[in-house]
Amino acid sequence: MTKTEILSLLRHSRGYVSGQEICGQLGVSRTAVWKGINSLKEEGYQIEAVQNRGYRLEEIPDVLTEAEIGSLVTGEWAGRNVEAHPRITYSTNLRARQLADAGAPHGTLVAADVQEGGKGRRGRAWAASPPGTSIAMSLILRPRFTPVKAPMLTLLAALAVRDGVEQVSGLRPAIKWPNDLALNRKKICGILTEMILEAEYIQYVVVGIGVNVNQTEFPEELREKATSLRMEAGRNFHRAELVARSLAAFEHYYGIFLKTEDLSELQEEYNRSLAGLGGPVRVLAPGGDWEGTSLGIHADGSLLVRRPSGQVEAVDAGEVSVRGLYGYV
Amino acid sequence: MTKTEILSLLRHSRGYVSGQEICGQLGVSRTAVWKGINSLKEEGYQIEAVQNRGYRLEEIPDVLTEAEIGSLVTGEWAGRNVEAHPRITYSTNLRARQLADAGAPHGTLVAADVQEGGKGRRGRAWAASPPGTSIAMSLILRPRFTPVKAPMLTLLAALAVRDGVEQVSGLRPAIKWPNDLALNRKKICGILTEMILEAEYIQYVVVGIGVNVNQTEFPEELREKATSLRMEAGRNFHRAELVARSLAAFEHYYGIFLKTEDLSELQEEYNRSLAGLGGPVRVLAPGGDWEGTSLGIHADGSLLVRRPSGQVEAVDAGEVSVRGLYGYV
Repeated sequence: MTKTEILSLLRHSRGYVSGQEICGQLGVSRTAVWKGINSLKEEGYQIEAVQNRGYRLEEIPDVLTEAEIGSLVTGEWAGRNVEAHPRITYSTNLRARQLADAGAPHGTLVAADVQEGGKGRRGRAWAASPPGTSIAMSLILRPRFTPVKAPMLTLLAALAVRDGVEQVSGLRPAIKWPNDLALNRKKICGILTEMILEAEYIQYVVVGIGVNVNQTEFPEELREKATSLRMEAGRNFHRAELVARSLAAFEHYYGIFLKTEDLSELQEEYNRSLAGLGGPVRVLAPGGDWEGTSLGIHADGSLLVRRPSGQVEAVDAGEVSVRGLYGYV
Repeated sequence: MTKTEILSLLRHSRGYVSGQEICGQLGVSRTAVWKGINSLKEEGYQIEAVQNRGYRLEEIPDVLTEAEIGSLVTGEWAGRNVEAHPRITYSTNLRARQLADAGAPHGTLVAADVQEGGKGRRGRAWAASPPGTSIAMSLILRPRFTPVKAPMLTLLAALAVRDGVEQVSGLRPAIKWPNDLALNRKKICGILTEMILEAEYIQYVVVGIGVNVNQTEFPEELREKATSLRMEAGRNFHRAELVARSLAAFEHYYGIFLKTEDLSELQEEYNRSLAGLGGPVRVLAPGGDWEGTSLGIHADGSLLVRRPSGQVEAVDAGEVSVRGLYGYV
């Protein structure tokens, strides 16, 4: 998309870039460049145009658009194909599934500024946030490994967003196994991984990620449970930058994961950020709750919990809930 | 739906049913009855109307409509909610997934007279048939068991369609494990089960079923592999009857399955129809092909195959293909 490429050029240039230079590098007409620049201005970019020198990017808006995300993505495949929505009445996961059903490639990203019908695990609602404050995104993956490995993708995504958050904000979230990130024991990110399978064959996986970035407050019922990067750091963050950094980190971790098809090379990294590691946890199992000590994740993505008797159990996400000693469930 | 109920009433009455009787039984107005009757006539039903006696069903068309299927369904939940399409440009599975995503209940059925974008396993094409000849249908299930059990639903569907075919035609198809039915070593039915999961939680399952009923021929490339009930029996069959019988059988087998959440009470039944039981099979495994003797399915839905060494292996659908000594792959 020309607009994304123009933005990318402007973004990565010091000083001015002449219209001619843009035409040459992108192989497009003057008119196309002019149209692209105007369209970017309409989206909120401040672009200075100076006779005989060219264009310069003065200010970048905090928008989740195809151009903004696309011009920041650095990886080979994650986010190379972006569909962005100002508002989506259902969820980015559902939209990603529609695209995947229609053949969208591995690495396609759906992002929304406002997601009205977001879902947490098991159909729980994921509250919508005001425009300009949060990230709702879903990444389409087409892995060739067996379905039993797919739940580990949630853990990779948690690691990736942790890195993205740290890179843009300096804050280092804890991971609440398996699928949330927290700051000061309040949720800043939730991950919902859905997979579409035939018997033992993965058609595709959609990793849905919601991040609280620039919210200044939450509704009453979430106040004890949720926080945002802004509320923790006292300043705003550029969401597309966080998206791009998280995608790059995801691509990195995915590559490591594929080598062994498990988390053996990442479990230490994960456990370093694991909330409640070494502390008491309550395991909510169908056959009855019990308490133990969290020993961190196993290479297969399960959580190892030591019973008072000394016996260590590998607890699977989905089968049980684990509650630690922090502020939200 | 009034039309379905009127049709059901006419269908299950001997002789004439008066308009007043229909109004009374269904609690609807004379006008509604009149409209329903007219609409049925437009769909091809021949309904005789005699002054002072009422209506009588003279002839029933071979249509896959909501009214026709709905008036024949006998079970508690399978097919209680039907959406029928004269033509669907994609597939009934995809449509069923849309409905399930929007909240359609357990047992909802999508049926199509012509399915243009049908899919077999792993994205293989499933050829469209001329109008009025085949069945394409997808059943939405919302089981509460764990995902690892879901592939067994394919085997239940195979049993169910086998029963449906036998009840309407007297023919008894063989089951090609795990997901096809065959007559004279040619395919008459294929089943594609798709499941939408979070980690260890089933959102829903769609069981897609295609049946060759009244085709008189197949395209060149399928001639050796496919047949229809008509081509085997020399006469046409009423497709909605086959749908309804298959759904009733599915509901029956599903109930048995739920008791143990495995096939322990159905494996004998399944093996009785299993193509190639006791004969040589070739197992196409990722690590290399091998040959053995088919011993029938295990209670978990896997196929037991004895190697020449005497060792018995449980072979999972999806991981391997199995070829027997019959006409299609």
